Amino acid sequence: MTGPDERIPQGFARDAEGRLLIAGVAADAWAEMAGETPLFLYDPALVAARLGALRRALPSGVLLHYAVKANPFPPLLARMAGLVDGFDVASEGEMRRAIGAGMPPASISFAGPGKRDRELSAALQAGVAIVVESAGELARLKALATAGDRRARVLLRVNPPFELRGSGMRMGGGARPFGVDHADAPDVLARMRDPCLDFLGFHVFAGSQNLDADAIAEAQRQTIALADRLAPHAPGPIRLLNLGGGFGVPYFPGDRPLDLAAVGERLGQAIADRPPSLAGTRFALELGRYLVAEAGVYLARVIDAKLSAGELFLVTDGGLHHQLAATGNFGTVVRRNYPVVNASRGGPPAGPAHVVGCLCTPLDRLAERLPLPETKAGDLIAVFMAGAYGRTASPEAFLGHPPPVELLAEPPQRA
Amino acid sequence: MTGPDERIPQGFARDAEGRLLIAGVAADAWAEMAGETPLFLYDPALVAARLGALRRALPSGVLLHYAVKANPFPPLLARMAGLVDGFDVASEGEMRRAIGAGMPPASISFAGPGKRDRELSAALQAGVAIVVESAGELARLKALATAGDRRARVLLRVNPPFELRGSGMRMGGGARPFGVDHADAPDVLARMRDPCLDFLGFHVFAGSQNLDADAIAEAQRQTIALADRLAPHAPGPIRLLNLGGGFGVPYFPGDRPLDLAAVGERLGQAIADRPPSLAGTRFALELGRYLVAEAGVYLARVIDAKLSAGELFLVTDGGLHHQLAATGNFGTVVRRNYPVVNASRGGPPAGPAHVVGCLCTPLDRLAERLPLPETKAGDLIAVFMAGAYGRTASPEAFLGHPPPVELLAEPPQRA
Repeated sequence: MTGPDERIPQGFARDAEGRLLIAGVAADAWAEMAGETPLFLYDPALVAARLGALRRALPSGVLLHYAVKANPFPPLLARMAGLVDGFDVASEGEMRRAIGAGMPPASISFAGPGKRDRELSAALQAGVAIVVESAGELARLKALATAGDRRARVLLRVNPPFELRGSGMRMGGGARPFGVDHADAPDVLARMRDPCLDFLGFHVFAGSQNLDADAIAEAQRQTIALADRLAPHAPGPIRLLNLGGGFGVPYFPGDRPLDLAAVGERLGQAIADRPPSLAGTRFALELGRYLVAEAGVYLARVIDAKLSAGELFLVTDGGLHHQLAATGNFGTVVRRNYPVVNASRGGPPAGPAHVVGCLCTPLDRLAERLPLPETKAGDLIAVFMAGAYGRTASPEAFLGHPPPVELLAEPPQRA
Repeated sequence: MTGPDERIPQGFARDAEGRLLIAGVAADAWAEMAGETPLFLYDPALVAARLGALRRALPSGVLLHYAVKANPFPPLLARMAGLVDGFDVASEGEMRRAIGAGMPPASISFAGPGKRDRELSAALQAGVAIVVESAGELARLKALATAGDRRARVLLRVNPPFELRGSGMRMGGGARPFGVDHADAPDVLARMRDPCLDFLGFHVFAGSQNLDADAIAEAQRQTIALADRLAPHAPGPIRLLNLGGGFGVPYFPGDRPLDLAAVGERLGQAIADRPPSLAGTRFALELGRYLVAEAGVYLARVIDAKLSAGELFLVTDGGLHHQLAATGNFGTVVRRNYPVVNASRGGPPAGPAHVVGCLCTPLDRLAERLPLPETKAGDLIAVFMAGAYGRTASPEAFLGHPPPVELLAEPPQRA
């Protein structure tokens, strides 16, 4: 019942009647359970499967951290707390959610270029590891730790002299607001030699959303070499090296999934070849999108089907207020369709349609010229790749519509 | 105390000490009153002045409506309820805010391409005018009105065969999800001849954010001609013609403010020359951005000043979670700086700086290579043009930071 032009990602399928199944349950049944549309569904089995694949592919002992910013839905965090080795947070609010979801503060690290004093204090108080991003921040943190008679667990974020080639977003190489330039790191490390600080190691984030295993492996190897160069300046052994993330997911036609086996093999070699300065180091990966993006689906209901100048518009109750990235309006130069299908029925395409949101703005387009079977008001539309940077990365209050429902997609086992 | 490269919009100034004044009060004093940064300040005197200028320039009798989506801050709505002739809303949530702010439901109209049944019912119940956007929506509305024994006050939104030339966003001309194609309008008008409907007139919105008085005047004249062509098909006299908006504001260097006198004069002629079919028609303009954008300032505090590869980064506690459009990430192809200044001190530029937000993403840039006086941690940065499409058009939950403060900028008269 799958149309020839359909893009249904792995982990999802249609049943014999053509209904899209999410965690084995039809989309329409999920909407009924939710009592409302639009809704986000996150399938924890897909997250667990991805983590399992990572554990198998990566060298044993590599720590897997989840970057909460990708999706901070509390029930999802609660599930992930038992599956990953740490949470990386970027605000006091995320820190509170991480602790609330059951992650021990000792396994949380807090990065971000603009941490305020009260955020530093909260992290100190909780015992969360603080990723130091500048000499100025370090001075503030030392003053707070001394005043509060607390020892701060710290990593130094280093702005590396290289970037992760071909990344969706570059975060290293050249002038950046993140971390301390590698050239300035020795000076900052000298200032970290202080009894009020418990130095853990380094954090280096060279890019994101990358599908090239070679590029990722190369950045990881460069990160290890950078840590080795900086190790003699460090106030203590490098106990932890956060290698960043950068693992991409395939959003668009032609995108090939990341070759995880290749990444794992290359990282294994790099760790085996590591310099003596890192003999006792634990290595961590910080993954957000890669863990959750593909596990999420956004369902919106068609409110109206209308023709304009011969083109079919399917107007849904969803839109950019919930799924800004899918409309191509969040840091995107050329808009391309995310995988979008009719979730209520399959079959061969009846012709192309524009799927738009309910907002009164021409920016609100979920899919353009999409091949769809004959689609009627009341049908559900599924936008895939909605598990990361969906709800919280969207202007939810724009135009005053209600918030979306969010659900863990777990079929009711016991009736 | 103003630097040579500074862009401080009309309505704002620096005092003798170089502090930015907002409604006559220094920015730092506002931040102290707010008790927190970042904050949005909206100067109601500037909104009133803009409305006064519009009333003087426009032909008498033209109704001024405010498009609530531009800024739905309730205290601002309460002020504006007494200054404009109507509110235009785009969701049930906006409708409730409009009514809550004291606007009579009879002066509210509700547009939007994806109105759900429950939104139509709420509008019917409240007596708000409903802007019909499709034949399908009309059928649903008639069923609801009949079932509820309520007469619906309706306008027909027409997708015009022309666009507002050079608009920031085109909303007419070609295939659009908004309204009924002009060619299909006679058929839909025939279906509007029904005792459950009270037909008011037409709504035509041909574009937005336009600085060209000629283009606006031409679109208005074309709109009047379109209404005349459709009038014979209407179920009753055209009592109201909503001419849309499109009035732009100058965001960027080289943008020239709209010539309001020219717009008013041309509209006066067009109304004087109107066809007999529109002899008894009232004309309305629907303005959002033009009424409030320039009245708003976003203030964020510098948390850190750091050099990277020789470039200065000022890291603030604000960012794209509050002011997405200013970072160039909301439907923008080429990012340009909004007017941004140091609000705590003036003086000649000490050199260029990047002003970034506190979010851990490279998208979070409030200004690039901005000439600024020597700026220190603790200084306030002002982002102007923040009165429209600011807070609610931004992904506030992104990265879990607290919401911004919002204030009407009215100096305390009585101590």
